[in-house]
Amino acid sequence: MYRLLKCAPLFLAVAVCSGWLFDDFGGKPKEPDEISLWPLPQKYQSSGVAFKLSAASFQIVHAAQSSAGPSCSLLENAFRRYFEYVFGDLKKHEKSRKKARDSDLAELQVWITSADPECDGYPSLNTDESYELSVDEPSAVLKAANVWGALRGLETFSQLVYEDDYGANNINKTDISDFPRFAHRGILLDSSRHFLPLKVILANLEAMAMNKFNVFHWHIVDDQSFPYMSRTFPDLSQKGAYHPFTHVYTPSDVKMVIEFARLRGIRVIPEFDTPGHTQSWGNGIKDLLTPCYSGSSPSGSFGPVNPILNSSYEFMTQFFKEISTVFPDAYIHLGGDEVDFSCWKSNPDIQKFMIEQGFGTDYSKLESFYIQRLLDIVAATKKGYMVWQEVFDNGVKLKADTQIHVWKEKPQYPDEMAAVTAAGFSALLSTPWYLNRISYGQDWANIYKADPQNFNGTDAQKKLVIGGEACLWGEYVDATNLTPRLWPRASAVAERLWSDKSVTDVGNAYNRLAQHRCRMVKRGIPAEPLFVGHCRHEYIGL
Amino acid sequence: MYRLLKCAPLFLAVAVCSGWLFDDFGGKPKEPDEISLWPLPQKYQSSGVAFKLSAASFQIVHAAQSSAGPSCSLLENAFRRYFEYVFGDLKKHEKSRKKARDSDLAELQVWITSADPECDGYPSLNTDESYELSVDEPSAVLKAANVWGALRGLETFSQLVYEDDYGANNINKTDISDFPRFAHRGILLDSSRHFLPLKVILANLEAMAMNKFNVFHWHIVDDQSFPYMSRTFPDLSQKGAYHPFTHVYTPSDVKMVIEFARLRGIRVIPEFDTPGHTQSWGNGIKDLLTPCYSGSSPSGSFGPVNPILNSSYEFMTQFFKEISTVFPDAYIHLGGDEVDFSCWKSNPDIQKFMIEQGFGTDYSKLESFYIQRLLDIVAATKKGYMVWQEVFDNGVKLKADTQIHVWKEKPQYPDEMAAVTAAGFSALLSTPWYLNRISYGQDWANIYKADPQNFNGTDAQKKLVIGGEACLWGEYVDATNLTPRLWPRASAVAERLWSDKSVTDVGNAYNRLAQHRCRMVKRGIPAEPLFVGHCRHEYIGL
Repeated sequence: MYRLLKCAPLFLAVAVCSGWLFDDFGGKPKEPDEISLWPLPQKYQSSGVAFKLSAASFQIVHAAQSSAGPSCSLLENAFRRYFEYVFGDLKKHEKSRKKARDSDLAELQVWITSADPECDGYPSLNTDESYELSVDEPSAVLKAANVWGALRGLETFSQLVYEDDYGANNINKTDISDFPRFAHRGILLDSSRHFLPLKVILANLEAMAMNKFNVFHWHIVDDQSFPYMSRTFPDLSQKGAYHPFTHVYTPSDVKMVIEFARLRGIRVIPEFDTPGHTQSWGNGIKDLLTPCYSGSSPSGSFGPVNPILNSSYEFMTQFFKEISTVFPDAYIHLGGDEVDFSCWKSNPDIQKFMIEQGFGTDYSKLESFYIQRLLDIVAATKKGYMVWQEVFDNGVKLKADTQIHVWKEKPQYPDEMAAVTAAGFSALLSTPWYLNRISYGQDWANIYKADPQNFNGTDAQKKLVIGGEACLWGEYVDATNLTPRLWPRASAVAERLWSDKSVTDVGNAYNRLAQHRCRMVKRGIPAEPLFVGHCRHEYIGL
Repeated sequence: MYRLLKCAPLFLAVAVCSGWLFDDFGGKPKEPDEISLWPLPQKYQSSGVAFKLSAASFQIVHAAQSSAGPSCSLLENAFRRYFEYVFGDLKKHEKSRKKARDSDLAELQVWITSADPECDGYPSLNTDESYELSVDEPSAVLKAANVWGALRGLETFSQLVYEDDYGANNINKTDISDFPRFAHRGILLDSSRHFLPLKVILANLEAMAMNKFNVFHWHIVDDQSFPYMSRTFPDLSQKGAYHPFTHVYTPSDVKMVIEFARLRGIRVIPEFDTPGHTQSWGNGIKDLLTPCYSGSSPSGSFGPVNPILNSSYEFMTQFFKEISTVFPDAYIHLGGDEVDFSCWKSNPDIQKFMIEQGFGTDYSKLESFYIQRLLDIVAATKKGYMVWQEVFDNGVKLKADTQIHVWKEKPQYPDEMAAVTAAGFSALLSTPWYLNRISYGQDWANIYKADPQNFNGTDAQKKLVIGGEACLWGEYVDATNLTPRLWPRASAVAERLWSDKSVTDVGNAYNRLAQHRCRMVKRGIPAEPLFVGHCRHEYIGL
């Protein structure tokens, strides 16, 4: 009865051409590969036997043996969310609860097996996100060590449900055993080039959960604006944000983002990029930035953080002390990319310091000097750190648990991934996943084909690849266009980072992804189309 | 006191770099070039003298001398619409009307000077859209021959109003005399590759009015789907739409689009493209398409409309009779592009017909044979027609008033514009304005630089250029991403087609367009950003 899912060897062209001819009034229960799971689970068996789900009787419940119960508000929230995804607005179904019929799937039991379900915890790099899901009558059972695996399984369960010709909800008899290929599966959003209203961030956290992403890399400040409202240094946003009241993230905004993410098993890693990319910092903090010189006098413009003043390090100490308490995650992203040396070179005090330190004219030594001190400051807060690849490339001495974020085209990223891991550091890939870069046509396929472990290296090196991130830099996106530009293109990254390395069939992916994007649209996310075709429920926003 | 607007010679780089430093809390009345009129009027004088506008006292009224009055519902609608754009939600201001103070601008008088204001008419190619606007105390006066010019002037008036530091509405003393450079300023939307919900079409008509576009070219059907519900041939949408109920435009939907457009001075020109691009037609009309052959037997697939059967022409006669009554505009777009000959070549009946007609193996003669008969059919409905350039290129005999729509890269479009106008036909340009084609970065500047009259030709030829259209083909856009992809990129086309030929300063355009896009955002249109920066009122949708 059961049969193993076989990825149908469909070619893209076939899928595309037949799209508009596709009859969505077809009869029998869905074939497993029509159900459009995304990302594809690691092990998946399904049969043609279908059960019905009635909104009036179906329930998601804690299994009797589960270590979690009604006091686990994370799960209670998730039960409600996924019930709504499957059945639509809850309110319609509140009143007339009924007993399930014999042929129905009566319930989904969620069984947390660890003594500590981690209901009030935060996900981390070491979180076990695996789960097992069995759909059979009269109950489906979702088994996970803790709430984080349960969240992933609930998403998968909701994706298994499909409407038959009568609009009734069906689910096929199914067995799934699933776990992520990589532990770090992130999305970078940039709230500095354009301010992103909270609503946009939260909607994208929703979409991330639908794609089993688990890290929100919040590139919260940069040259253009400083929307993070600091308790310790309120002038940073007061003078550095686009607007001190309407274009800032208050402490409660930040808390809300972190909690909204936590409820979806998503870590929030803030990036406070220094010593470059800091123009907006200079508005609020006197003498933080290096004064640039034009000939023998200051030009009035400023460069990177001034690395020769003690006050710079005193500021960073206090600032990162605050950051380390505001953001619960064990990691902070410290940036360190694209430091422009021209301003440092122009400044006579810096020139003198270079001579004193014996740096000659090698300004990357000055950069390393700054970064080294910064890393020590952050290490003292007990946080781990992520840095962009330049910090590694420049030979800065790093703690063993430092994560190197690879983003540059040169050297070719497989070479950089090999170098970083050969040096024993954890590596994260973003180079092929700069989703701000757009081009005409179906670019998702190239996004999909990139693999973080495709480089020459030992098994030990491959194990140091902890994952990757899709980056949506903010120069050309804001609330008006961010979400459709990110989705479903980021979904291609999601499957690469979650599913087995062997899942690479672009034709099969096209079919599932086209349906997955319609599912996101139905759930209110304006994910753009892959190509011609339609969704049963088109986007109803604007 | 008055001074002529001078386009400040700002360079793009300056505008961009200073964007984030720009202080939007500045003091005094706006300088004329800060007011961000888009598209720039033909003649424009403004002074630093500012008047205030109070929502409680300001009114838009018919001038005593106007030929239009309260029974002109088109204007009444427009008065309300522009009052709301200026002051926000009407309801807040309904109750406590007050008398204007001396320093206020008390009212805008709209004065229609022709005997027939055309309140219940439709705009046409020959419509006079010129207007004169004088803002002075105690009243501003907008003078136009008819309602169409008044609509353009109302938009300009609303763009003159700006908020001062206290959020109060101000307007400077101003004199404007304005008219469009080209009569045909269009946007093409494609509702076949993806169905576009009515809401999306209406929102884009709103945005078009904000940019003084006056033609909605509705590429309503194509290979992929046939959403137009025909009264005469209901099977066309019943069998050719993505879904026969949810993905169609009913007769009342079409009426609503036409009326919504009319109220904004926008013509609706439908395109029913034949003989190619007709796969979806074949589902509902037996024998309409050419059966393709594989060797000596039909392959089961179909090609363009079958040009050798009388039944094809009988169908077209009935079909276009309906279309000519449903769409009030004097023009219909008949397509005629990209006819693939391979299916015709494969069909033995077609081969025989070619011999009988003495066409040899020149299938473009067969295409012309079809088009010629189609043009006669449509001419009998008293409609004019637009066709894509291939119809001209293939030497089809055309009525003198035919409009040739130039879209191909080869030959280079200036050469094609020269050839079309040398032959005495009206020409429309779209080649540089295929806005479905996207690339990374600020592509609006190239869109802006293209000019339909930049070709070698006589003055008489230049006069035959009636305008152009921005085209957003639908392969990769639907309700989720269409609007931000179109705006403000299409705004660049809007200014090219409305403003004087000399208005070409990209730096000045950048500054005005960045503000214009924020104005569109404030009015609910998710127009995407040009580059880094912010809007005082960010988009509040998703």
